[in-house]
Amino acid sequence: MVPWHPTVVIAPDSFKGSLTAAEVAAAMAEGVRTALGPHAIIVECPLADGGEGTLDALLANWHAVPRFIDTTDAVGRTRTARYGISNDGVVGIIEAAEANGLPHVSDIPLQPMHADSYGVGVIARTLLDQGVDEIVLCIGGSASTDGGTGLLRALGTSFLDSDGGEVEPGGAGLVRIASVDDSQLHPRARQVRWRVATDVDNPLCGTMGAAAVFGPQKGATPQNVIDLDVGLEHLSRLINAKTGVDIAEHPGAGAAGGMPACLVPLLGAELTPGARLVTDVVGLREICESADAVLTGEGSFDSQSLRGKVVRGVLDVTPPNCPVVVIAGTVQLSAAEIASSGVLSAFSIANGPSNLADMIANSAHLVREVSVQVGGLLGVALGARGACR
Amino acid sequence: MVPWHPTVVIAPDSFKGSLTAAEVAAAMAEGVRTALGPHAIIVECPLADGGEGTLDALLANWHAVPRFIDTTDAVGRTRTARYGISNDGVVGIIEAAEANGLPHVSDIPLQPMHADSYGVGVIARTLLDQGVDEIVLCIGGSASTDGGTGLLRALGTSFLDSDGGEVEPGGAGLVRIASVDDSQLHPRARQVRWRVATDVDNPLCGTMGAAAVFGPQKGATPQNVIDLDVGLEHLSRLINAKTGVDIAEHPGAGAAGGMPACLVPLLGAELTPGARLVTDVVGLREICESADAVLTGEGSFDSQSLRGKVVRGVLDVTPPNCPVVVIAGTVQLSAAEIASSGVLSAFSIANGPSNLADMIANSAHLVREVSVQVGGLLGVALGARGACR
Repeated sequence: MVPWHPTVVIAPDSFKGSLTAAEVAAAMAEGVRTALGPHAIIVECPLADGGEGTLDALLANWHAVPRFIDTTDAVGRTRTARYGISNDGVVGIIEAAEANGLPHVSDIPLQPMHADSYGVGVIARTLLDQGVDEIVLCIGGSASTDGGTGLLRALGTSFLDSDGGEVEPGGAGLVRIASVDDSQLHPRARQVRWRVATDVDNPLCGTMGAAAVFGPQKGATPQNVIDLDVGLEHLSRLINAKTGVDIAEHPGAGAAGGMPACLVPLLGAELTPGARLVTDVVGLREICESADAVLTGEGSFDSQSLRGKVVRGVLDVTPPNCPVVVIAGTVQLSAAEIASSGVLSAFSIANGPSNLADMIANSAHLVREVSVQVGGLLGVALGARGACR
Repeated sequence: MVPWHPTVVIAPDSFKGSLTAAEVAAAMAEGVRTALGPHAIIVECPLADGGEGTLDALLANWHAVPRFIDTTDAVGRTRTARYGISNDGVVGIIEAAEANGLPHVSDIPLQPMHADSYGVGVIARTLLDQGVDEIVLCIGGSASTDGGTGLLRALGTSFLDSDGGEVEPGGAGLVRIASVDDSQLHPRARQVRWRVATDVDNPLCGTMGAAAVFGPQKGATPQNVIDLDVGLEHLSRLINAKTGVDIAEHPGAGAAGGMPACLVPLLGAELTPGARLVTDVVGLREICESADAVLTGEGSFDSQSLRGKVVRGVLDVTPPNCPVVVIAGTVQLSAAEIASSGVLSAFSIANGPSNLADMIANSAHLVREVSVQVGGLLGVALGARGACR
C-alpha cells in the first residue's frame, strides 16, 4: 500500500463580521487535520473577492506582514494606510479604501464633488519606488468620483484646463480638463503590470454609471450626480482622443468612482473580477492541480457566491474530478442549486437552533468542529483513493 | 471496473416532537438517493429505543400496518389500543402505554394505588391467541405500579389472599397476596418468547425502585410510595419462593411499575435495553454486514445517544470498518466526543441561524437537504471503494 498523503487545499473567503479568511482557513485546517491525522498535506490559501479583506488574505498567503505609509484620505487629510508587498518583492497590493475609503470620512459632511483618489496614488508611487513589477489594486469602497484623476496626479500626471492651469481635484474639476500632461509621470508607472480588482460590472457613465449608481451613497445630490456624470463622460472622451482607448462602455469602468477611466487607457491596467484576480495572484489553479479535495466557504453561501465571489473563483480553478466542499455560516442554496453549481457538498456551521450573535461569537469553534466532521468523510474518501493508487 | 452498487443503510431514531423514525428514514433515503443516483442500494430501517414510537418503527420495518384491539386503560375504562404482528405471524409487538399509559388517564385524578396493567395483558392474550411465537413488549410510560399482576391476571393467573379470594387489582392489593394460582394461565403464555424492552435500569424496590422513583409522577403520595414499595417487595419474595427467581435486584425490574416482577419469574421474560432489542428484532446486524455506510440520527445527538439510545444500538451492530454518520436536529457533542464514540461524522440539519420552531416545521426538508450533502461525500468515498474492488 502506497503511503497515505492526501492533499487538502483550504481556500475560504472571510466570514464577514466574524472571521478573516486567514482565521477561517486556520480553523478549517485544524479541524481537517484532527480528522485526517499527521500524514495529510493541508494547504491554507485564504481568499477574498477583491473587496475588504483582500490585502489581509494575500498577505496571509505570502506569510507577509502589512506595511504602513502616511498618505491622505479622500478629502486630503493625512492618514496611515496599510499595503503589502510579496516576499520576493515582485507584487504590490493596494486596497484603495485604505486611503480613500468612505468610512474614513464619515466624521465630516460628505464631499461628493471634491473627494479624490490622490491618497491611493501615493501608495502606488511608493510601490513603484520600491521596485515591484506588478500592482494589484482593489478599488471597492471609495468615497470619491474622480475617474481616477487623483491617483494619476499622485504619480505625476497633470490635468490642465484650457488656460494650462491644474483643474481642481475631485469630480468637480473633471468637466474643465482640456488636456492631460503625463510628461512628469513616474518613470515606472507604465512599466509595471496593473491588475485592478473590480467588484461591480457598471459602466463609467449613464444610468448604470459610477455617478448615478454609487454617487448618492457618497453624498451626491441629484444635481451632483448629473455634474459628475457629465464630468466622467468628458474625461473618457478626452482620454479616448488621446489614447485611442474607449473606456466608457467597459464593464467595471464605473467601479470606485470611475477609477478605471484613467488606469486602463493611461497605464494599461487590466480589469479583472476580484475573486478571479485573487485566485490568480495566489496561484490557486496550480495549487489545486495536486489537490485531492478543496474546502472553501464564506459567511453566507448563496446565489451571489456563484457569481464572481470566492466559491465561484475556487470552482473555476479546481480540476473537475476534485471534490469541492463548502462550509458556511448559512447555507442559503438548495441541494439542487448546490449540486448544479459544481460544489459536491455544503454544510452550515450551525449545530442546532441558534441565533446569529451566538454563531458569530463561536464561529471559529464551529468552523473547526464542522471541519472535523467533513474531514472524517473526506478521510474515508481519500483513504480509499490512496489505497487504489 | 465493477458495477457500482454501494449499500447505504438508513437507521435513524425519530426526531421527537417532529418526525417519526420512518419519516426521518424516508427523508434521509431521498437525500442519499439524490446524491448517489439510481445504482445505490438504500435500505431503510427506522429504529426506536423501546419507548414511544417503537411500535411504529417496527411496523415500518415490516411494511405492516397496525392492528387495533379494544382493551382497558390503567383504570379499567375501555380503550382501543394499537399493536402489531410481523407479516410472517411470528413476532407480536406491544407498546404497553397504548393500554395503561399515563396520558390516557390524565383526564381524571391519578389513582396510584389502583391503576393496573390488565389492559396490556389483554393485548398479550390476543397475540397468544393469534399464534405468535415471540412477544416484544415495550413497557415505558405506564400509569400503574402493580408489579405486572394486572397483565398476568389478563392471561389467567389469580393472585389470592389468605382466604383464597382474589386480592384487589393494582398496587393496593399486592401486600395481601398469599398465593399465585396459575393453573388457568393461557396455555401458550410460557411457550412463547417474551422480550421486554426496558428504558431504565432501576431495581424493583428501595430508594431507586419503581415506587420511589416513578411513583410520584403517577400520583403517589409519600405514604403511597411506602405502601407500594412494601407491596412490590412482598410480591417479589412470594414469587421468589414459588419460582426460585429473585427479581428484586435485577436491573430494570423497576421499569413500568415493576412489570418485570411477574414477567421474568412467571413467564421467563428477558429484559433487554430497548434500542438493542429493536436492532435485534429488525435484524440490523445482519443488514449492516453488507453495508458500505450507515446513516443514523435523532432529534438531539448528545451523551444520552451513546448510552442505550439508538445511535449506540447502531454502533454496536455495525462492522468496525463501516462508516456511521449521524444527522441530527442538534449536535450537542464535541468533535472529540463524536470521534471517540465511533461515529465518523455528525451533522446538524440547521442551515444557519434558526429557531427550534422553524426547524421542527421544516425538519423533513432539512433532513433531506443535509442528507444530499452527506450523500455527496459518501459518493466519493464509496465510489472510490467500488472502483477498488
